[in-house]
Amino acid sequence: MKLAIIGTGLIGGSIALKAKATGFASLVVGIDRDSAHLETAVKLNIIDKAADLDNGIADAELIILAVPVDAASLLLPKILKMISSRQTVMDVGSTKSGIAEAVKTHENRSRFVAFHPMWGTENCGPAAATAISFAGRAGVICDREFSDSDALEIVERLAKNLEMNLLYMDSAAHDLHTAYISHISHITSYALANTVLEKEKEEDTIFQLASSGFSSMVRLAKSHPEMWVPIFQQNRENVLDVLNEHISQLLKFKSALEKENYDFLEELIRNANRIRPILEEK
Amino acid sequence: MKLAIIGTGLIGGSIALKAKATGFASLVVGIDRDSAHLETAVKLNIIDKAADLDNGIADAELIILAVPVDAASLLLPKILKMISSRQTVMDVGSTKSGIAEAVKTHENRSRFVAFHPMWGTENCGPAAATAISFAGRAGVICDREFSDSDALEIVERLAKNLEMNLLYMDSAAHDLHTAYISHISHITSYALANTVLEKEKEEDTIFQLASSGFSSMVRLAKSHPEMWVPIFQQNRENVLDVLNEHISQLLKFKSALEKENYDFLEELIRNANRIRPILEEK
Repeated sequence: MKLAIIGTGLIGGSIALKAKATGFASLVVGIDRDSAHLETAVKLNIIDKAADLDNGIADAELIILAVPVDAASLLLPKILKMISSRQTVMDVGSTKSGIAEAVKTHENRSRFVAFHPMWGTENCGPAAATAISFAGRAGVICDREFSDSDALEIVERLAKNLEMNLLYMDSAAHDLHTAYISHISHITSYALANTVLEKEKEEDTIFQLASSGFSSMVRLAKSHPEMWVPIFQQNRENVLDVLNEHISQLLKFKSALEKENYDFLEELIRNANRIRPILEEK
Repeated sequence: MKLAIIGTGLIGGSIALKAKATGFASLVVGIDRDSAHLETAVKLNIIDKAADLDNGIADAELIILAVPVDAASLLLPKILKMISSRQTVMDVGSTKSGIAEAVKTHENRSRFVAFHPMWGTENCGPAAATAISFAGRAGVICDREFSDSDALEIVERLAKNLEMNLLYMDSAAHDLHTAYISHISHITSYALANTVLEKEKEEDTIFQLASSGFSSMVRLAKSHPEMWVPIFQQNRENVLDVLNEHISQLLKFKSALEKENYDFLEELIRNANRIRPILEEK
């Protein structure tokens, strides 16, 4: 299958590598407004060639939109206008209500499949892409009833080639659950990094004392605002809702410490320990 | 050298394994009030034999106290009374002011070396111990001026065998820096787990949607209260101070979202991104 990847960064690049490795893709054309990314992507054999948008998508059977969610919402309606009814477009965004709204009444809406591969790292750009990225993680297809069955089938086939566990939900449910599970984790990590940078003025001390625990807590805080500001913006209400809950959970720890109520502190910790069996079903 | 390890859990067990692997220890005697731990530790060749406290420490040149910090503060004065001036005792605790206070005026204070190997995982017990645990991490010796030079030299030699980077500070500075860098990370992770467990009532959904990012953020939340309640208790003031800062950092994210001030949100994220070069000196 001929693929066009718009945005040859971590996610687009990783999909390209795995799609080529499994034989799902016979040819991958890369499109990126950053010419250095395109050059790197060609050098690393992530894409077979670079092209501009018009030429790049002309022959593609599957067009993968792998740009930040604000750019994706703007670009998708244009792309849907440029394609035939035998071409399919999918996105990879972490929010779905915004892009769903952007094409709700589009005449070619049914050629679009909303897809969220739930994997990422704190790194970006084609050099961070790997073929082993998505295996075992959730791949969520949203609003499948609005996509043509052949378009859906292509994206499902790609997800299987990425070895992802397919899930289906509507955009609203997706955005709620990702706020709860993914987006709040990023805010927590950013705020923790800012806390430590504020309190610990000696950068050398942070470097010297950083344990594996601390490093894993601030890993997400390395993620770039170009990707995450649009996600928080598009999922603002859900993120605010879970952020309020998170602040009130921290206030419980504060209260337990202030009142020296160590039974309550133990209770809070025992409750948090419940996350272990839930994650270890994996 | 003959070692006695009091507490054959993750830390004590890992030190024993590495000390035997490098030849630092010729014999390791294990002491533990949990007889199942002792049995496992013998089976896994972590310790050579199990003993009670009296017999276990009688011949040991180095006695390693690897129990929760509240138990360590109670046990250390007793052990210092039982040993000769040719024996050395060290702890491995994450807080130091409490234990320093407990032996400040002890006649055998100088046989004690306060040591904090800054490594750990969310798992516990001897089965979680590994010989590769400490390499490259900080090993902090506190209040070295109160330890005999031969006692100090033994612990420094152990730290080198563990491949740790030795640092020296006083107890008060240690407890401040560990609150900033290590202890707050645990509270954040516990509170994040409680947040997600509160908002996401479907445990299956947490399991299905858990990304690598989420998993790394709640890893520390699996840590047991038996170890962490005493740490928070002994370092209460420093932890409260950094927890207040952390809550105010989260309130900035809340304010940026509530006011839809995305420039401010970007600024907060860019500030957090500064953690990358600091950690990547490593």
